[in-house]
Amino acid sequence: MGGDRAPGEIVAGALEAASDVLQPVLVGPSGLDTGGLELVEAVGTIGMREKPAEAVRAKPDSSLVTACRLVGEGRAGAVVSAGNTGAMLAACLLELRRVPGILRPAIAVPLPALRGPSVLVDAGANADARPEQMLQFATMGAIFAEELLDLPRPEVRLLSIGEEPEKGNELTLETHALLAESDLNFQGNVESRDLLEGVSDVVVCDGFTGNVCLKLLEGTLKTLLTGLREEIAATPRGKLGGLLIRPAARRFRDRLDPDTYGGAYLLGLRGLAVIAHGNSSRRAVASAIRLAARGVEHDVVGRLARRVGSAEREPAVR
Amino acid sequence: MGGDRAPGEIVAGALEAASDVLQPVLVGPSGLDTGGLELVEAVGTIGMREKPAEAVRAKPDSSLVTACRLVGEGRAGAVVSAGNTGAMLAACLLELRRVPGILRPAIAVPLPALRGPSVLVDAGANADARPEQMLQFATMGAIFAEELLDLPRPEVRLLSIGEEPEKGNELTLETHALLAESDLNFQGNVESRDLLEGVSDVVVCDGFTGNVCLKLLEGTLKTLLTGLREEIAATPRGKLGGLLIRPAARRFRDRLDPDTYGGAYLLGLRGLAVIAHGNSSRRAVASAIRLAARGVEHDVVGRLARRVGSAEREPAVR
Repeated sequence: MGGDRAPGEIVAGALEAASDVLQPVLVGPSGLDTGGLELVEAVGTIGMREKPAEAVRAKPDSSLVTACRLVGEGRAGAVVSAGNTGAMLAACLLELRRVPGILRPAIAVPLPALRGPSVLVDAGANADARPEQMLQFATMGAIFAEELLDLPRPEVRLLSIGEEPEKGNELTLETHALLAESDLNFQGNVESRDLLEGVSDVVVCDGFTGNVCLKLLEGTLKTLLTGLREEIAATPRGKLGGLLIRPAARRFRDRLDPDTYGGAYLLGLRGLAVIAHGNSSRRAVASAIRLAARGVEHDVVGRLARRVGSAEREPAVR
Repeated sequence: MGGDRAPGEIVAGALEAASDVLQPVLVGPSGLDTGGLELVEAVGTIGMREKPAEAVRAKPDSSLVTACRLVGEGRAGAVVSAGNTGAMLAACLLELRRVPGILRPAIAVPLPALRGPSVLVDAGANADARPEQMLQFATMGAIFAEELLDLPRPEVRLLSIGEEPEKGNELTLETHALLAESDLNFQGNVESRDLLEGVSDVVVCDGFTGNVCLKLLEGTLKTLLTGLREEIAATPRGKLGGLLIRPAARRFRDRLDPDTYGGAYLLGLRGLAVIAHGNSSRRAVASAIRLAARGVEHDVVGRLARRVGSAEREPAVR
């Protein structure tokens, strides 16, 4: 029941993703037409504008909270929702437990960059982060890139305001030192101007900076395309040109289509949680479900636990 | 001698800006052709890739440091350079003094947003900032918008990751409270997705976040336009359409042209300093000089001192 196009596109996406080895379970009101997929009944929904923590507390039987609980109870391997992001975060923290050793879950978003996907982590779960948490974000992002996006030994970079190690704020300077000592394939800092180029497989930052970047990218894309369209439509010559470049514009949009990777992935919990865009199409929903299923197959949660566990046994790095 | 197109475009821009009431002084090597403008001789230059603090210390007679010193000595009202940003920052801190009461100078950048200019402050002078410094950034940004961009009683917003006051990190939450109690026209938080729309006259953030935003905007604009151009050039139909929309694309680019406002303004010092883009055209250089001159006419430094001084006499806000 989550998102602007539920339940229609959600059910359609689940049907599209369903296969012999992938069985989506839908969570929603009694009587929902699921096209033959299993339905777990839920009572009530959480709206896109409700206050996350309050809504999750007040509506434990809503479709969103129920879906998270299925994973907590081991009845599903991962949860996917196009609903209220904050509520998903709150419900996941409540219903799923953290992977032992993980300090804080983080949100990973595969950016549709020009040279292929680039995983931005943390994209908004932790507005304030400490260096040792940032190191874990990097580890989680690298496992995500390796297992789910098929990027072997992914390159990890730290988002900062200069490529030199000494450029940055207190948080990035300390994090840089931790990353340089880690066993990750750390390649130094990256500047935000290169984010959409896709210069790095994994880009690490705190959740405040990550969320600001993500929203700035979205907003800039929208403002640019709208502004350009306005100017093109202002003259007859422009209009004709606009018709002619339409296929090119569509190809370009497809290259940068956020629906390709389905959304934001909440990592660090015992079960993968995917927060799809609020206006996800069936294609986006299907992508998100397939990527979540792949996370289960590849045992991303187990690998995270082992990697973090082995890091914990090493001598302290600070 | 600063920037990629010096001295040609710099001298041309200075000549363009010169008038009965505005007398640019050029700083450069003996024998430089200034087209009749006053020349102050300097020895050596600081390159775009030199380490700022070291270069400024090692080359006290370079054109960049000499130009800043002219303001410190009262021989010029403001300094404009298209050179090394970090070196300008270091030289200004060394040669100009802070306005009494100002804790830290900040960089203000007028973003060419769709609804008119929006001043982003701090765009990179302070990678780490405290709430009381952020309040001063807001005050300096508001005076800049009022006096230099003709925006009466400018609307001030705080860059955060949600519009609600309770959304953000520790720094923005504390800053929000200070701004709400101030005498500024504070209108709450703004999200980065709306930055290029121009929803606020002044947008306040710490220098790390501001610099990340600025570079992300620049990079995204470039990546998007290059990517779109590639797709358009891929087919004959696209190429023809591309020719037809060229005037529209140019109009669009002009609306978002960073050269309109000339660059980044270093505020909080006894004299205005303007850091123009490294590849500034004569038009950009002339804009920067005119805006700097206007800052002198409108006594931005004096107003800053009075505003900050009066704020200091008020009861402490924390």
